[in-house]
Amino acid sequence: MHFASDNWAGAHPLIASSLSTHATDYSQPYSDSPFDKQVQHHFSQIFERPVSVFYVATGTAANSLALSLVSKPGGIVLAHSEAHIVADECGAPEFLSGQLRIATVGGADGKIDAGLLRRKVESMDGDVHAGRANAISITQATEAGTLYSLEEIEAVAGVARDFGLPLHMDGARFANAVVALGCSPAEMTWKRGVDMLSFGATKNGCWCAEAVILFDESKAGDFPYIRKRTAQLFSKSRFVSAQFEAYFRDGLWLELARHANGMAARLVEAIGSSKEARLLGDAKSNEVFVVLPKTLVKTAREKGAVFYDWPTPAGLEIAEDEKVCRFVTSFATTEEDVKQLSAILQ
Amino acid sequence: MHFASDNWAGAHPLIASSLSTHATDYSQPYSDSPFDKQVQHHFSQIFERPVSVFYVATGTAANSLALSLVSKPGGIVLAHSEAHIVADECGAPEFLSGQLRIATVGGADGKIDAGLLRRKVESMDGDVHAGRANAISITQATEAGTLYSLEEIEAVAGVARDFGLPLHMDGARFANAVVALGCSPAEMTWKRGVDMLSFGATKNGCWCAEAVILFDESKAGDFPYIRKRTAQLFSKSRFVSAQFEAYFRDGLWLELARHANGMAARLVEAIGSSKEARLLGDAKSNEVFVVLPKTLVKTAREKGAVFYDWPTPAGLEIAEDEKVCRFVTSFATTEEDVKQLSAILQ
Amino acid sequence: MHFASDNWAGAHPLIASSLSTHATDYSQPYSDSPFDKQVQHHFSQIFERPVSVFYVATGTAANSLALSLVSKPGGIVLAHSEAHIVADECGAPEFLSGQLRIATVGGADGKIDAGLLRRKVESMDGDVHAGRANAISITQATEAGTLYSLEEIEAVAGVARDFGLPLHMDGARFANAVVALGCSPAEMTWKRGVDMLSFGATKNGCWCAEAVILFDESKAGDFPYIRKRTAQLFSKSRFVSAQFEAYFRDGLWLELARHANGMAARLVEAIGSSKEARLLGDAKSNEVFVVLPKTLVKTAREKGAVFYDWPTPAGLEIAEDEKVCRFVTSFATTEEDVKQLSAILQ
Amino acid sequence: MHFASDNWAGAHPLIASSLSTHATDYSQPYSDSPFDKQVQHHFSQIFERPVSVFYVATGTAANSLALSLVSKPGGIVLAHSEAHIVADECGAPEFLSGQLRIATVGGADGKIDAGLLRRKVESMDGDVHAGRANAISITQATEAGTLYSLEEIEAVAGVARDFGLPLHMDGARFANAVVALGCSPAEMTWKRGVDMLSFGATKNGCWCAEAVILFDESKAGDFPYIRKRTAQLFSKSRFVSAQFEAYFRDGLWLELARHANGMAARLVEAIGSSKEARLLGDAKSNEVFVVLPKTLVKTAREKGAVFYDWPTPAGLEIAEDEKVCRFVTSFATTEEDVKQLSAILQ
Repeated sequence: MHFASDNWAGAHPLIASSLSTHATDYSQPYSDSPFDKQVQHHFSQIFERPVSVFYVATGTAANSLALSLVSKPGGIVLAHSEAHIVADECGAPEFLSGQLRIATVGGADGKIDAGLLRRKVESMDGDVHAGRANAISITQATEAGTLYSLEEIEAVAGVARDFGLPLHMDGARFANAVVALGCSPAEMTWKRGVDMLSFGATKNGCWCAEAVILFDESKAGDFPYIRKRTAQLFSKSRFVSAQFEAYFRDGLWLELARHANGMAARLVEAIGSSKEARLLGDAKSNEVFVVLPKTLVKTAREKGAVFYDWPTPAGLEIAEDEKVCRFVTSFATTEEDVKQLSAILQ
Repeated sequence: MHFASDNWAGAHPLIASSLSTHATDYSQPYSDSPFDKQVQHHFSQIFERPVSVFYVATGTAANSLALSLVSKPGGIVLAHSEAHIVADECGAPEFLSGQLRIATVGGADGKIDAGLLRRKVESMDGDVHAGRANAISITQATEAGTLYSLEEIEAVAGVARDFGLPLHMDGARFANAVVALGCSPAEMTWKRGVDMLSFGATKNGCWCAEAVILFDESKAGDFPYIRKRTAQLFSKSRFVSAQFEAYFRDGLWLELARHANGMAARLVEAIGSSKEARLLGDAKSNEVFVVLPKTLVKTAREKGAVFYDWPTPAGLEIAEDEKVCRFVTSFATTEEDVKQLSAILQ
Repeated sequence: MHFASDNWAGAHPLIASSLSTHATDYSQPYSDSPFDKQVQHHFSQIFERPVSVFYVATGTAANSLALSLVSKPGGIVLAHSEAHIVADECGAPEFLSGQLRIATVGGADGKIDAGLLRRKVESMDGDVHAGRANAISITQATEAGTLYSLEEIEAVAGVARDFGLPLHMDGARFANAVVALGCSPAEMTWKRGVDMLSFGATKNGCWCAEAVILFDESKAGDFPYIRKRTAQLFSKSRFVSAQFEAYFRDGLWLELARHANGMAARLVEAIGSSKEARLLGDAKSNEVFVVLPKTLVKTAREKGAVFYDWPTPAGLEIAEDEKVCRFVTSFATTEEDVKQLSAILQ
Repeated sequence: MHFASDNWAGAHPLIASSLSTHATDYSQPYSDSPFDKQVQHHFSQIFERPVSVFYVATGTAANSLALSLVSKPGGIVLAHSEAHIVADECGAPEFLSGQLRIATVGGADGKIDAGLLRRKVESMDGDVHAGRANAISITQATEAGTLYSLEEIEAVAGVARDFGLPLHMDGARFANAVVALGCSPAEMTWKRGVDMLSFGATKNGCWCAEAVILFDESKAGDFPYIRKRTAQLFSKSRFVSAQFEAYFRDGLWLELARHANGMAARLVEAIGSSKEARLLGDAKSNEVFVVLPKTLVKTAREKGAVFYDWPTPAGLEIAEDEKVCRFVTSFATTEEDVKQLSAILQ
C-alpha cells in the first residue's frame, strides 16, 4: 500500500517505451532538433497559443529559473507560506536568481488570500531599504492538496496586474489540477493572467520531465543564458521530448491524473465515513491530509501502508493521541491498495 | 555519416531497456532507495575504494558543483584555456559556486603544462586584491581529443599537493580515457592525486547520467545542500541509477568507449594516409581534429557527412583555402560510416 | 526640534578634529598602518580580550559580512521580524553572503523570545529540502528602542550553544545599550556567548565608522577576502581609525550615548505625564515610540518638530484618530529641543 | 621620500576642513539632503549635462556596481588584462553583479587595442555555451600610468557602439587624466561615447569620495537597489558631499592633480637623464614605472625612499640584476622628495 509520494512511483510503461523508441539514430542536442521543436509545438497546441518551452531538470529548477527571468534588484517574490519555493527548495529560487527574496502571504487551504496579498503589496512602498515587490507565485494544485478555483486565480492575477507584477504558477501537479477543475490548460493559466508556468510531468508518470512555459514568447530573451549558466541545459534533450511526446499522446497525461485524483477521491470518501479519521482541508487533487489516532497510524503501518507523518498545520488543534498524516496517490496507485487502506481507516 | 558530436547519438538499447525494467514498483526518491545505494556502491567497486556519488543533471553541473564544494572567498580555479568550464559553460561554475573565478594556464594539446601551472600558482601570493588559488581542474580526455598520461596527471597533482589545492577532473569522456590508457579508473584518478571527478556517461551511451565522485567521503559534508540549492537533486533518482546499472553491467561502458575510440582510430589512420587531410594533435580518444581543404569539406558534406567546423587553434597557421574540422565518434558510430568518410578523405 | 533619526546628526567636533589631525603625512593603506593597528588594539582593550576588527562602510555591510563569514550552503539565519537585517537592508545579507536566507522569530518589544527560538530551531531538522539553521542574530539596542537584559542575551546564547550556531549581535546602537545596561562591553557580548558584533559608531557621533568585531580571532581566516570581494575594504583606512581614536578617547563614546539616552529618558518622562501621548514599549535607549492623536502630530510638526510616522506594530490596536510616531535622540540633541517637544506633548 | 602610492597620502587640509564645517546641524541621510543634491548638481555642471551621481565606499565598489547595472545573464565584460577590475578587486565585479565574467583584451601601455577588441567581440557569437559580450571597461589614466588619447577612447567607443555594448570608464585617477590631456571632463567621457564613469577622488586628496556617474539619467533605474543590496549606501552621505564640495571649489581637484602629474613629470625627466634608470612606457599621469639596477633600488631604500617593486610586464626582458619599480606621486608629494629621489636615480 504505497501512499508516500507521487515521486515514489516509477514511470508509466508508455513513457519508458517512448524512450526506447527514440533512442536510436542521431539528433541535434540542446533542444534544437526537429523532434524537440515538434514536441515544443505540442505545448503551444495544448495551451492554444504560441508558448516558449524550456526543459529543465527538476521542478525546483523550473520555479527558480522562471522567477529568475523576471528578477529585479531588491526584488521580493510573494508566495504562500506553504509553497514549495518557500518550504522545500533549500533556497534555490533565491540562489539561482542570484538575489531574490521571498515574502509569505497567508490564506486558508494552502492558497494565497487575494485580499491579504493586496494589502501586503500595498504596504510595500518599494523604498530602497525594504526592497520592492517583484513577482507573485501560486501553486496549482496546492501543497495542501487543494485547488484555486478559476475565480481565485483571477483574483490573485488582479493584484498582479494592478501592481505590474508577473504571475508565476508552480504546476508540479498541473495535470491533477486541470482534470479536477475540468477546464482547459489555457483557462487555468494565461486566460486568467498567469505569465509563467512550471509544467511538471515527473510526478504524473514521467521519469524526469519538467518545463518552464512562458506565455509571452517575446519575453523569453534571456532565458537560454539563465538556463545554461545554472547548468540546466540537457544535451540529449530528446530524452525529455520523448517523455512529453508519450505524455501528451491521446491525452495520456490527463488520464493518468484522472486516475490519481480518482484514487484520492475514494480515500476521501472512506475517510468521510470513518469514525476515527478526520479529513484536513478540501482535498481535490491527489494529496489527502488526515488526522488519525496514533494507534491507527501504527496499525496501518504494521499492515503495510507506506505514508508520511506531516507537521500539524499552524492553528490546528489536535488531540495528544492524534497526528496528521499525508496520503498521496499517483498514476500507479491500485484500486486494491486504496481498498485495503480504506478498510484500515474505517 | 554522423560525426557531429557524441551527444547527437541517442541511448544504447541496454540503457533504454534498463529504464523500462526499473520503471515499475515504488522506490524512495532523492537517491535514498536501496537500488540507488546499490548502484552508488558499484562506483566504489569500480574505483576500488569507498567514494561519495552525487547524481546531477549535466556535465556542467558536475563540474560546477564539485568546484563549489571546495570554493573559498576570493578563490580562483586554474584550468586550461580550452577547458569546458572556461569555454563552454556560460559561467556556470562561477555562478553556481556563488563566487569562483577561473584563470587559465597554457599547454600543448589541450593539456595544462605542469611547469607553467607551478609558476602561475607561485606567482599568486594570495593577497586580498588579487585573490588566491583555490583549486585545479583538468579534463580527461581533453577537449582536444588528447590524453594526459598518468605521469602528466601526477605532475599536475604534484603542484596541487605542494600548494594544498584540491584537484578536480572533468571526466565528460572518462570512459574513453580509461580505455585509451588501458589503466584502471583508480589509477587514473585518486591514485594519482585526483580529489573530485565529474563522471560523465551521457556522451557514452546514456540519456542523462552524470555524477560527481568524491574520493574522500569525509569531505562530502555540504554537498547535499549545494546540490539541492542549485536545483540539481532529481526526485526519481532511480532513472539515473537504472542507466548506470546497465552502463556498468558486464563492462558495457568500457566496451562502448572502446568502440568509439576504435572508430576514431580508423579515422586517424585514414587521415594519416590521406594527401589532403592533416591531423591536428595527438588524437587518442573519440575526437579527431583535422585540417582539410575547403573544397574537400564541401564535398564531404554534400556526400552526407555531418561534422562541425572548428575554430583554428591559437598559433596554428593554415592555408587560406583550408579549415579545421572536428569529427567525433560514439558508441553508435558504424564501421560503414567510418569507411565512407575515410574514402572521402583520401 | 530634530528627532527624525540619529543619522540626521553630523559628526561630533572631536571626531571632525581628529580627521584633521590625522590628515597629514603618509601611512600604509588597507588597515595595515601602525596607527590602524593601534586603534584596532584599542578595541581589544575595550572588550578585555584580543579581538579581530574589520572596518566596513555601513552597518548593513557589517551585518552582512559577519553573517557571510559563517554562512553554510542551505543555511538559514534566525532573527526577529523587526531586525534591521530583515526589514531594512534590501536583502544585503542574503546577497553579500551569496546565499543565506533569513527566517524570523517573534517576541515582544523587538526581542527574540528564547523559548520560541528554541522551538523554531528544534523544528528545523536540517533536511536538504528545508535547509538548516545556520546562525542567530540579535539587535542590541533593538529596533524598538528596547534592550535585551544580560539574562535575555544569555537565554538566546543558550539556544545558539545547544545547537552549535554562531551568535551575531547587530550593535548599530551598541554604545546606547552598554550605557543603558550599565555593564561592560565584554559582559554584554562574548561573556554572554556573542561570537560576532557589528560595532556601529556612525549613529553616535561619527561620520562613517563601522566595524565587524570577531571575538575569536582564530575564526577570522576568510574575512579579508570576504570584505574585499564585496568592495568594503577602504584604502585610506586611517580615516576610520581617526574617528574611532577620538571616539574612544576619554570615554567620549559612552558620554555621547549617555547624553542621547538621557534626552530620550526626559522625553519618556514627559510622555508619562501627558494626557494625550502614550508610550509604546519599554524605551531604554535613544528611540522612543509613541501613540499620538493625529491633531497633536500635526501641531507638533507645525511648531517645528521633525520626526517620522511609524507603522503600527502588528497586534496593536489604536484609535482611528491616532498614529504611532518615532522620536530619536542623538549626541546632538539639545535640552532646549527636548523641552520644547515635551511642552507640545503635554 | 614617499612614492609608494597615492593612497598612502592623507587628505588635503581643505577636504578635512570642509568635513568640520559640515559636521554641525541636521541633514537628511542617504544622499537626499539639499546639500547632497547641490553637490550632485555640481557634477552635472562639471560634465556639462545632467548626470546621475551615486556615492559608494570604494573604487572597487564604483566599478562593480556600474558594471552590475548593465549586467545580463551569461554576460562577459571586456577589459585590459592589467585593469584594476581584473587584477586587483578580488572578483568583486563578478561577485557584486551576481554573475558577470571578465575576459581580457591585450594592448600596449596598459591600453586596450581597439583592433584586437573588435576581433574579440566579433568572435563572440553569443551562443549560450560561451556566453555573450556584455560591456567594455577602460581605465583612464591606466594602471600603467599612461593615457588613452581622445582618439583612442573614440576607437574603443566605436566598437562598443557597433555591438551595442555599454562603455564604462574606471576613473580612479580621473583628475590626473583630465589635467594631462588638457581636455574637459565631458570631452573625455560622454562626448566620446563613455556611458558610465567610476569617478575617484580618494587618490587625489580626499579621504573617501568615490562616485558612479551615469551619463544617461534615464538608465539609472535600478541603481538605488543595486547599491543598497550591496551595503554601499552611506547614511551620513554628507560626509562624502562635504569632501566633493571642497574638491570642486575653485578647481582644487584639478590643481591637486596638476601637482601630482608635475611631480611625476620631474621624475620622468630625472630618469631620462639617468644612466642607470630606464623608463617603462609612456608615463603621463602620476605613476612612473622604471627599470632599475637592484643595487640602486637598495641604495634608494636605504636613503629613505618608499616605493614598491612591481612585477615585470609580460614580454619585457630585463637583466638579471635589474628590477621594475613603481613610483607614485600625489597631491602631497613635495618638490624636496622629488629632488632627493632624482638625485639618487642619477
